Amino acid sequence: MIGYVVYGRGCFNQLDEILSPQRKGDAPMIFLIDHFFNGKPLVNRIPLRGKDIIIYADVTNEPKTSQVDALAQQLKNEFGTISGIIGIGGGSTMDLAKAVSLMMTNPGSSADYQGWDLVKFPGVYKVGIPTLSGTGAEVSRTTVLTGPTRKLGMNSDFTPFDQIVLDPELIKDAPVNQRFYTGMDCYIHCIESLQGTYLNEFSKSYGEKALQLCQRVFLEKDVWDDESDNQLMMASYAGGMSIAYSQVGVAHAVSYGLSYLLGTKHGIGNCIVMNHLEEYYPEGVAEFKRMVEKNKVEIPTGICKGLTDEQFETMMNVSLGMKPLWENALGKDWEKIMTRDKLRKLYEKL
Amino acid sequence: MIGYVVYGRGCFNQLDEILSPQRKGDAPMIFLIDHFFNGKPLVNRIPLRGKDIIIYADVTNEPKTSQVDALAQQLKNEFGTISGIIGIGGGSTMDLAKAVSLMMTNPGSSADYQGWDLVKFPGVYKVGIPTLSGTGAEVSRTTVLTGPTRKLGMNSDFTPFDQIVLDPELIKDAPVNQRFYTGMDCYIHCIESLQGTYLNEFSKSYGEKALQLCQRVFLEKDVWDDESDNQLMMASYAGGMSIAYSQVGVAHAVSYGLSYLLGTKHGIGNCIVMNHLEEYYPEGVAEFKRMVEKNKVEIPTGICKGLTDEQFETMMNVSLGMKPLWENALGKDWEKIMTRDKLRKLYEKL
Repeated sequence: MIGYVVYGRGCFNQLDEILSPQRKGDAPMIFLIDHFFNGKPLVNRIPLRGKDIIIYADVTNEPKTSQVDALAQQLKNEFGTISGIIGIGGGSTMDLAKAVSLMMTNPGSSADYQGWDLVKFPGVYKVGIPTLSGTGAEVSRTTVLTGPTRKLGMNSDFTPFDQIVLDPELIKDAPVNQRFYTGMDCYIHCIESLQGTYLNEFSKSYGEKALQLCQRVFLEKDVWDDESDNQLMMASYAGGMSIAYSQVGVAHAVSYGLSYLLGTKHGIGNCIVMNHLEEYYPEGVAEFKRMVEKNKVEIPTGICKGLTDEQFETMMNVSLGMKPLWENALGKDWEKIMTRDKLRKLYEKL
Repeated sequence: MIGYVVYGRGCFNQLDEILSPQRKGDAPMIFLIDHFFNGKPLVNRIPLRGKDIIIYADVTNEPKTSQVDALAQQLKNEFGTISGIIGIGGGSTMDLAKAVSLMMTNPGSSADYQGWDLVKFPGVYKVGIPTLSGTGAEVSRTTVLTGPTRKLGMNSDFTPFDQIVLDPELIKDAPVNQRFYTGMDCYIHCIESLQGTYLNEFSKSYGEKALQLCQRVFLEKDVWDDESDNQLMMASYAGGMSIAYSQVGVAHAVSYGLSYLLGTKHGIGNCIVMNHLEEYYPEGVAEFKRMVEKNKVEIPTGICKGLTDEQFETMMNVSLGMKPLWENALGKDWEKIMTRDKLRKLYEKL
């Protein structure tokens, strides 16, 4: 778990104070910030000192192992060592920050560590500051990366941030559709966790709370206000805690195939898949559709049209490789339930 | 926050595996266990290795600074250094383990550190394993101690456990009245936190979840089963998290006076006070009384009968010294609301 969690409106202003005791000599703090903020006022509020620098993270595509390796190499070449790295952005930026932190101290390529408990050494000090809520990347023990052969995270005890700063003011200006897709990532986490076979009371408590908060902001309320930001930020945190102690399910497993082949971003990919999962999550999907309608967001359709057999095979291989997700969703005998034929039909519908 | 949290029925069996990587040479692990378990089967399940020892903690009274100092001195004399300390028991045992861990590395007496952020150095590795649920001591950044001049915790970033092991099987055999009093500590945390002026969405989310779990186990269900243990253990955790990010209120402030003067234990003391707080928490007190009735537990009355003026003064001084609690409960102008006269009348009713 994260050692230090600060939550509160305006707490971003405490960042200088939070970082001070973590500075090691004149080694800089690296602020890795979503390129969306280039030229925006938030950049002027970053407490730069000494050799600190801002790097804009291009998150047009989800993080790649090659991107992580290049960033870590660049920092090593320029500074030797750094005091820490602060990821400011959505799930992609936070995952990138976590991965770069680990690659400052672990040899080889980040692709070598895609999997479970392969990371050898703690990374440099790392801080996560979400500006979008829903992914749970601020609390997870993974960092989802697309590598040469797979889309899979560096799952390890060294992966979580040392500190997170949860300031609901920072998510206020998120584009409405982006906020919805990312928020639905959280909603889908809850449905997948709560209906999964891995569920225990710990993840259930977090999942139920996150679900209730999602229902409040996306269904019960008619206007989006500061309280909505406060609640969505907590929903993301609680949803992330819930899956940390259980697992996600069908929507994520299928969506990973889309991301790998088509580069579909995680939030929207989950929504595209969830739209067709009545068979597995009947109530959750019905509620999801009410949320889509109420929030007047369009979910893309027909994205698999015209793909070749080979491309379908690639997606299915990626998806069926996510064994723990399928087992959580469908039980030990999942392979008998989700046959290749059935999965192919599902992809064809998307 | 706690770095490592394990939750699950039977997870106590993983203790040996959890402790192994934390052992430093042949320095022992110290298992500090509530004397209630002396001769009980749980003791045989403790994974002793090498020079490890079991110490039975006498928690007839709540922990004292003198007891903490003596225990730490005894361990230093016998072993020089230790690998870690594992507190197995209720809130008192866990607080004792946390305090002894800190006093293995900090000079002087634990009484020197009663207050906020006075502890200078991290303690030795410490693990909390609750066998009673409700106090939230497993997640708090304090350790409540009665010292020569005050009842106050060592509140610091070094105070929380490094690891907690939450195994609902361990709370199964708790005496029913003790389970109720301790469970009500959690319920009261929720009411005090949710109605306090310090509330934010973080503590609210945890407080609401803990409250709901308390309602399930103490009101909605007619039998106590494994699920009740699972849920009460999560309620304690979430209630503790809620107050970690807000504060307790009137029941705790008044109850501290009782503990200091009369040695009233924390859980029952809170119940005795809560019984008379309709004015401050009308709905919470009404629901509390329904829980008392449903669970057929008797709350002592008349415990302040025959006390001298001087004794009342002592209790009032201790209670009114808990400024953050009063401010959370009644706002900035709390001194105008809770006058000495009014507090005296409240104590006389208990």
